[in-house]
Formats: sequence, C-alpha cells, structure tokens
Amino acid sequence: MTQIASSPDQVVAQRYRDPAPTAPAGWNPVLQVLHEHRSVRRYLSDPVPDAVLRLLVSAAQSAPTSSNLQVWSVIAVRDPERKARLAALAGDQEHIRQAPVLLVWTADLARLRGLAAERAVPLDGADYLESSYVAFLDAALAAQNAVVAAESLGLGTVYIGAIRNNPEQVAAELSLPPGVFAVVGLVVGTPDPSEDARVKPRLPQAAVLHEETYDASGQSAHVAEYETRIAEFYAEQQLDHSWTDRVLSRLGSAAALKGRDRLRDQLTAQGFPLH
Amino acid sequence: MTQIASSPDQVVAQRYRDPAPTAPAGWNPVLQVLHEHRSVRRYLSDPVPDAVLRLLVSAAQSAPTSSNLQVWSVIAVRDPERKARLAALAGDQEHIRQAPVLLVWTADLARLRGLAAERAVPLDGADYLESSYVAFLDAALAAQNAVVAAESLGLGTVYIGAIRNNPEQVAAELSLPPGVFAVVGLVVGTPDPSEDARVKPRLPQAAVLHEETYDASGQSAHVAEYETRIAEFYAEQQLDHSWTDRVLSRLGSAAALKGRDRLRDQLTAQGFPLH
Repeated sequence: MTQIASSPDQVVAQRYRDPAPTAPAGWNPVLQVLHEHRSVRRYLSDPVPDAVLRLLVSAAQSAPTSSNLQVWSVIAVRDPERKARLAALAGDQEHIRQAPVLLVWTADLARLRGLAAERAVPLDGADYLESSYVAFLDAALAAQNAVVAAESLGLGTVYIGAIRNNPEQVAAELSLPPGVFAVVGLVVGTPDPSEDARVKPRLPQAAVLHEETYDASGQSAHVAEYETRIAEFYAEQQLDHSWTDRVLSRLGSAAALKGRDRLRDQLTAQGFPLH
Repeated sequence: MTQIASSPDQVVAQRYRDPAPTAPAGWNPVLQVLHEHRSVRRYLSDPVPDAVLRLLVSAAQSAPTSSNLQVWSVIAVRDPERKARLAALAGDQEHIRQAPVLLVWTADLARLRGLAAERAVPLDGADYLESSYVAFLDAALAAQNAVVAAESLGLGTVYIGAIRNNPEQVAAELSLPPGVFAVVGLVVGTPDPSEDARVKPRLPQAAVLHEETYDASGQSAHVAEYETRIAEFYAEQQLDHSWTDRVLSRLGSAAALKGRDRLRDQLTAQGFPLH
C-alpha cells in the first residue's frame, strides 16, 4: 500500500497544480492510489513474485469487459533476453530491460474464433473495425486495473505504446496467432527511488469535462493555463517544456508515428480485417 | 468505501468460482474494490454531487495517457430528457434513464487539431488509424479510473458500448465537433439494493495469462471449465446460460453488431480518416 504522504486536497491539487475545485468528498485509500499515479522509468531488479503477478491478472480480469466477451489476453515476459529483444523493437526503452516483467496486453479474437471453428459457425462480426475497438478497449480496461493493483502494492508501472512500432516482429517474438495483436506493453517492477518520479500535472479539469454538450470555447485559455503549470513542473527538473510544441510534433506527421502509420496493414495481416 | 464483506481469498475466489491459485499477497482496500467490481443495472435516483463528479474526473485524469497527449474528453449528461434520448439511441437501456448521470467518454482529437490550426502547422499523424486507437485507449484508461473511483465511494457503474450503435445521432445530441467521437458511455449512480448485482465469474486465469509466449493449447479445456462455473452463477439466478452460445451469437454476424458494422464510415464522417 502506498503510504499516505500528503493530505487529500494536496494530492488532488498536485494533479492540476491548482487548488482542487472543491474539497474532495469521501477521500479513501483507493482515491489516494489513483491520484498518486506516476509513470516509473527507472527500476530495481527485484523480481515480481508469481503470487503478485496472479493478483494483477485477477484484478485485470475483474475489470468490465464488453458483453463478457473477454477478448483479450496478456503475456508475461520475464526472460531477460526476450525482454531485451522486445525493448529493441519498442523504442529501445531501457526500463523494459531494467524491470523484471513486461506484460504485453493483447486484443485476442483467436479464442472466440477457435470456438466458432469447433462448431463450424460463422463469426463474421469479429471481422469489423468495431470488434477491433472492442478488443483494444477490453485490453485497456484490464491493463488499467492491473496498473492500479500494482501501484496499491507499491510497485511502479509504465505503459509501452511503442510495442505497436513493429507489430510483425513482436507477434513473431511472442508467437501470436492470427487474431491476436499486441495493444500495449506494461512494465512492472519496484521503482528505483533515485528516479524521484513525480505526479505530472494534467490539463485543467474544465478542458476535459463538459456539461450536457461539448463546449469547445475556452480550450485556448485552458491550454494556456496548462502551459504555465506544466512548465513549472519541468522547470523543477531543470527542463524546458512546451506541451503544445510537444503534442503537435508527436502527431505532426506520419513519420512521427514511428512505424505506426502502417498499423492498418499490420492489423489486417494479423487477422483483423477491419471491415 | 465498499465494506469488506469477505476475506481476501473469498473475494478472489468468487471472481473465478475457484480457490485462488495462491493466497493473495499483501491484500489491501484497493485490491478489494477492484475484485468486487460488478456491473449495476438498477439504480436509485439519488443525485451524484458535483464534488463527487469532479473527483471521478480527477481520478480519470490521473490515469496514464499516451505521450501525455490527453486525447479524450468526457461529457456529463444529467438532464433527464437528454439522458432519455441517449438511452433510446443506445439500446434502450432503462438504467441510463434511471441513474442520475451518464458520462460519455470521447476520443478527442479536436483539441490538438485546434492548436495545430492556430499555429497553421500540419497534424497529419492524427489522421491515421493508430491515432484513433490512441484516443480510444486514452479514453478507456481514464474511464476505468473513474469506475474504480466511483466504486470506492460505494457508487455503481455500468459501461454502455451501445453508445456506438448510432454515432451520428449521439454526436448531434452532444454537439460533438469533428475529431470527437463517443467511445463508451458510463452510467453512474447509487445501486438499487434490490438488484443484488453479483460478481460475475471470468475465464480461468490460465486462459488469459500466457508465460513468455502465447500458448493456444488448453483453451478448449479452460472454456469447458468456465462453462461449468458461469452456468452455476446464472443457475443461482434461475437462468440458463452458455457463454459459448452467447459470445458466438454476439459476434456471429454483421447484423448482430446492431449498427456498429458501419463504424468505419461513421468515424470517417466524424473526422477520423483512419489512414
């Protein structure tokens, strides 16, 4: 369990770097863990015991799943050499090598396709774009429950979206059959306390929460306010930062997607026709 | 905070209807809330206070987001008439009318498109299929944190995937601009204790957790085992159930997708070119 290091209003305030809109009602240890999330990018080599891994997966399976389809699976990679090869495929991120476990969350239509084949019945609905979203969403909900569970146990995590940079090689490395696609990686391990990973401020709540209907007015002001706050966050780490520069560069071109501009073809090749 | 009604091993066991693989290590209130999740489909009319809604959203914003892009927004619908119209569009689910709030989680590329337009720079990366998955995943991670936060406060929730049945009408109802798409709805409210919502068993952990590489062998046996357990769960409610029948029917045909077979065209029309 994460230690309660600060008062509830401080915990919410640090997420926005602003006094919370109102004092939090009914604060509890779950809200504390959720709000104290930070991505950890430096790990100790301590192993994650099997019993803990299974607890993360039972938490993941406790997440909602669309129509109880359960169209996801997770692959736990602990072999240092396989982990290093996956790191090389996923943006060469050192923390993948450093941490003891990489969980690869997959969209998995293969299980249901297998059942349909056994009964010789069609499963045409699985071939639509919609079903890929259902499987990606199922995998995301499960993974996020695992993140929350891990953090409640004092472990650190960071998602690896770069697992989608080279899907063919990742599928080969993990022996993924057709109908199974690596959605996102998740590094899990004991945070190296020397990193001092911090709670990153987010956009003001008014930028993302709309009442009754979507209201685009005010976004410029919200973003301007955010630039001040996130600049302060990075300045504390002796770094310059403009969120706008960064996000516009991140999505500025096909090349900036680092191979993920080919995702449509790669999914099709891996058994997701995306009709 | 949910009351601790049963011992940790009982809580994990009810998720699988099987003794847990090992006794849970380091049980805590977060793991308890995660494992006790159930979907609630009958609600009291008690309002969800503003302070609570804001806490759910700050929990949602505390979730990881790909490259800090924050490409999601949420619309809180409390107006009974709008909620009723959305219910009619989303599979006519009575609990959408009954509960005080429907949160509509959206993939939101409009914020970044607006910033790019202000600076007159390209945002070509946003036009790729990959960026739609990033936005759907961002929305899912945020929504799931809100689910966990709500349940920690004793509230009930249920996701509404059927919000994707009629995307054009939903976009019109919520005034969604191009680049904003309703990914999933989430009903939030006080559970009606008369429903007796139960923890639904999931596939055996061995069906979804793979070690090092994907292993398709054994899926038939895992599913057979699951059929026994989920049949028992439904039999307690005087219902017959075959999971295999149900999932094969749910994805058996384009028609079974209830309009979501048109998702590709609808996303394109709403400003997601899906290159």
